[in-house]
Amino acid sequence: MTQSRTVTEIADYLGGTVRGDGEIRISGLGTLETAGPDTLTFLANPKYASKVAETSAGAVLMAPGGEGYGRTVIEVANPYLGFAKLLALFYTAPHEPLGVLPAAIVDSTAALGTDVTVYPGACIGKNVVVGERTVIYPGAVLYDNVTIGDDCIIHANAVIRERCRLGNRCIIQPGAVIGSDGFGYAPDGTGYFRIPQIGIVVLDDDVEIGANSCIDRAAVEVTRIRRGTKLDNLVQIAHNCEIGEDCMIVSQVGISGSAKIGNHVTLAGQVGVAGHLTIGDNVLVGAQSGVPGSLPANAAYSGTPTMPHKEWLRSSMIMPRLPEMRKTVSSLEKRIAGLEATLKLTAKEN
Amino acid sequence: MTQSRTVTEIADYLGGTVRGDGEIRISGLGTLETAGPDTLTFLANPKYASKVAETSAGAVLMAPGGEGYGRTVIEVANPYLGFAKLLALFYTAPHEPLGVLPAAIVDSTAALGTDVTVYPGACIGKNVVVGERTVIYPGAVLYDNVTIGDDCIIHANAVIRERCRLGNRCIIQPGAVIGSDGFGYAPDGTGYFRIPQIGIVVLDDDVEIGANSCIDRAAVEVTRIRRGTKLDNLVQIAHNCEIGEDCMIVSQVGISGSAKIGNHVTLAGQVGVAGHLTIGDNVLVGAQSGVPGSLPANAAYSGTPTMPHKEWLRSSMIMPRLPEMRKTVSSLEKRIAGLEATLKLTAKEN
Amino acid sequence: MTQSRTVTEIADYLGGTVRGDGEIRISGLGTLETAGPDTLTFLANPKYASKVAETSAGAVLMAPGGEGYGRTVIEVANPYLGFAKLLALFYTAPHEPLGVLPAAIVDSTAALGTDVTVYPGACIGKNVVVGERTVIYPGAVLYDNVTIGDDCIIHANAVIRERCRLGNRCIIQPGAVIGSDGFGYAPDGTGYFRIPQIGIVVLDDDVEIGANSCIDRAAVEVTRIRRGTKLDNLVQIAHNCEIGEDCMIVSQVGISGSAKIGNHVTLAGQVGVAGHLTIGDNVLVGAQSGVPGSLPANAAYSGTPTMPHKEWLRSSMIMPRLPEMRKTVSSLEKRIAGLEATLKLTAKEN
Repeated sequence: MTQSRTVTEIADYLGGTVRGDGEIRISGLGTLETAGPDTLTFLANPKYASKVAETSAGAVLMAPGGEGYGRTVIEVANPYLGFAKLLALFYTAPHEPLGVLPAAIVDSTAALGTDVTVYPGACIGKNVVVGERTVIYPGAVLYDNVTIGDDCIIHANAVIRERCRLGNRCIIQPGAVIGSDGFGYAPDGTGYFRIPQIGIVVLDDDVEIGANSCIDRAAVEVTRIRRGTKLDNLVQIAHNCEIGEDCMIVSQVGISGSAKIGNHVTLAGQVGVAGHLTIGDNVLVGAQSGVPGSLPANAAYSGTPTMPHKEWLRSSMIMPRLPEMRKTVSSLEKRIAGLEATLKLTAKEN
Repeated sequence: MTQSRTVTEIADYLGGTVRGDGEIRISGLGTLETAGPDTLTFLANPKYASKVAETSAGAVLMAPGGEGYGRTVIEVANPYLGFAKLLALFYTAPHEPLGVLPAAIVDSTAALGTDVTVYPGACIGKNVVVGERTVIYPGAVLYDNVTIGDDCIIHANAVIRERCRLGNRCIIQPGAVIGSDGFGYAPDGTGYFRIPQIGIVVLDDDVEIGANSCIDRAAVEVTRIRRGTKLDNLVQIAHNCEIGEDCMIVSQVGISGSAKIGNHVTLAGQVGVAGHLTIGDNVLVGAQSGVPGSLPANAAYSGTPTMPHKEWLRSSMIMPRLPEMRKTVSSLEKRIAGLEATLKLTAKEN
Repeated sequence: MTQSRTVTEIADYLGGTVRGDGEIRISGLGTLETAGPDTLTFLANPKYASKVAETSAGAVLMAPGGEGYGRTVIEVANPYLGFAKLLALFYTAPHEPLGVLPAAIVDSTAALGTDVTVYPGACIGKNVVVGERTVIYPGAVLYDNVTIGDDCIIHANAVIRERCRLGNRCIIQPGAVIGSDGFGYAPDGTGYFRIPQIGIVVLDDDVEIGANSCIDRAAVEVTRIRRGTKLDNLVQIAHNCEIGEDCMIVSQVGISGSAKIGNHVTLAGQVGVAGHLTIGDNVLVGAQSGVPGSLPANAAYSGTPTMPHKEWLRSSMIMPRLPEMRKTVSSLEKRIAGLEATLKLTAKEN
């Protein structure tokens, strides 16, 4: 899979600048500690700058102006991003198109783009549309009337229910469920009447969904996740939610029905979000927080219920000291009672 | 799918009363804002009553005595429930029975009721019994000796393990697992000895299980969920639990082993419940709460550990003010020390 | 499945000692309350010792020296473990090897050990290696180059992605995902660049993974779970984690990337663990806790953020009393102000 390239070729690929010997051949990537002479490494965190002096790497990716300690250097504005791009360049390749493999189950009314791969055991329903180069792994199930764009990857045993739509370059990890019924019931006096969930889910381009995550279809309209947003594993998105662009929704987050999340929002692990609220753009919510109401944009929040993150840091540090504080308050009460008694006595004596 | 009906026909269907023109033909449903002349809408929340004046809907479903602003009205006791029933009437239809489709895998000893549908890629084991009109989607797996009632829907890639039993009208969303092994191990001095989980899961009639939720089989007897209870997505029910009738278990709730939950209980999102406890009927537990012990019936609780909901509301509002309170206590300490010093001085002077 | 054995045979099997009639034939197991004359029961908790007097069981498993009330007794050091072993002896049997069943999909390059069972609908990719006696249920998917040891059970619809490796006697419950892509993205100024996740997951011998749990593959190296560790359902293990031996990870726990967990660690339900930290051996973390940083070995912790468990018990009991405490502090403030005013007055008067 890995093919060697010169330092100059790599610098050109990343739009970077070489300092040192551009003819060195690089055939793989490693860490500052493990990289050898035919290997490239990177320095992203200035904390580790001195390790560059000791690395055996053939070349080091770093920010412009960094100390090279005599090593061959490729300068790029964002070395971490550069390294990620080289990981892709050296160690990954597009999936070779294999067509519809035997034992794949594809309804005759489905329309498959060129160069798709449909593995054995995958099931594709009526009137499904699948774009070019999309790969569908074993056991993935596309219900009737699903539409999927180009260059998508639908991993094993993922399920996309009827009429849901995916854009281009979406990646669905194994076991994820897109379009399960929303959790909607009308109390009928004794039990619950199931409200039909007749809407759909729409994932825009470049959306990625983690393993065993669940996105419920809307009651009557659309549950939507916009371009570039990434969901980690075991995330729950309830019916009628709207999630903006380029959000990061970390593992085990749960978002209740009809919540509206802005762009560039990060929800850390195990956060819970109540329904029918709005979270503004660029909000960051700390792990395990519970969001009971709307959150204004451009700020960080934590806690259950959420408060500004800095307030939470202060408050949560007091938690372990509450018993001591309680004792102090009790002792103050006694001392004040003592003072009050003394003063009354003094007053009488006077 | 939608077939038009007169206002009078709809009123009869719901057991309601017409005020206005019963001959208007309705062919679909909409919101107060979006409904047109051949569309019916509903008013459930009195807050929006004035919007009835502006709606273009052909008819409005509302509670008896509501102001109709000249619109044709159908009066029903519970307009939200009525609307849910009309959603079902207009936009859903029973699944057309398709029989056992090619590439479905059905053991020859399985007994399938009339009018079932078994999709390609579904697997049905030995001695399985499936009731009438039940639909089993692709990739769903029924282990040996499973019994499923009439009119059930088993969605794609759901798994029902050996000997588990489902009643009638159960709905299992995609990827849910019924009957996984309970988490039981006996420490043997160095590691853990696996305790065989030889019990089963029983779901009574009208139970619904959300996508990727897990219900563990009992160690030796039965994990049971009673009639009408609904589970949302990604819920965990441990071995030997008993969940009562008509409960609502919201997404990402986890219930530990041998817990006993009453009837009409609501557990909001991400609640955790400890094992070997009892939660009484009609209890409501707020989102993200942790229930460490039994909870008496007919009350609302929140917090970790749980306390009465109203207490929690007050306590949690103080959390952000703890740093300020701590400062106050420190300053009171100093002021009291000052007062004490002054009084001693005064005492000496006197 | 159950075959009768004499009390003496059972005592020999467990390495225990008979007090009473060793010739009694036992054909099953029950509780102290339900066991009959041909049934064996056990006493593990001394709290229930008096129930031995009333049981109808043919024999009772108990710790050496326990009061037998005239019953036939088998003495073993750990009666709970002994009972678990008898459950296995009486009620379970190894899976009969069935070979590769029709409609199983096995690539011609896969190497299957003797006495395997591969059920219909299971998919096994290129160059997969499966050990002896391993059972692979319907819908389970093994991507290319997976290696699985002897005596493993891969339940229905579990997914093991490319190149991941499992030891011997691993059990994967239905729907679990091993080797999903780690959640790694490099911000590129506008959105996120996906960092290729080219590492793998390695599960050592005797590891068990609960239903619908997810273990992400490492970015470049290995996500590892060591011998004997058990995961409950719906657990999330992020990329590059290392989990030690004989850990118990309870349902809905989430562990962030590159966390290093020691041996014999117990994480109770819904715990969240931050990334890039170390948890020492024998640590116990209470349910719903949030672990923000490293935890020293041999101790119990609780709370968000975690503190020593005993501190948390005290702190959390004060939570419901915060409103009252706040009132006390307010009233103390007033009383001090009053005292200060009085003293000033007194000072002036003097």
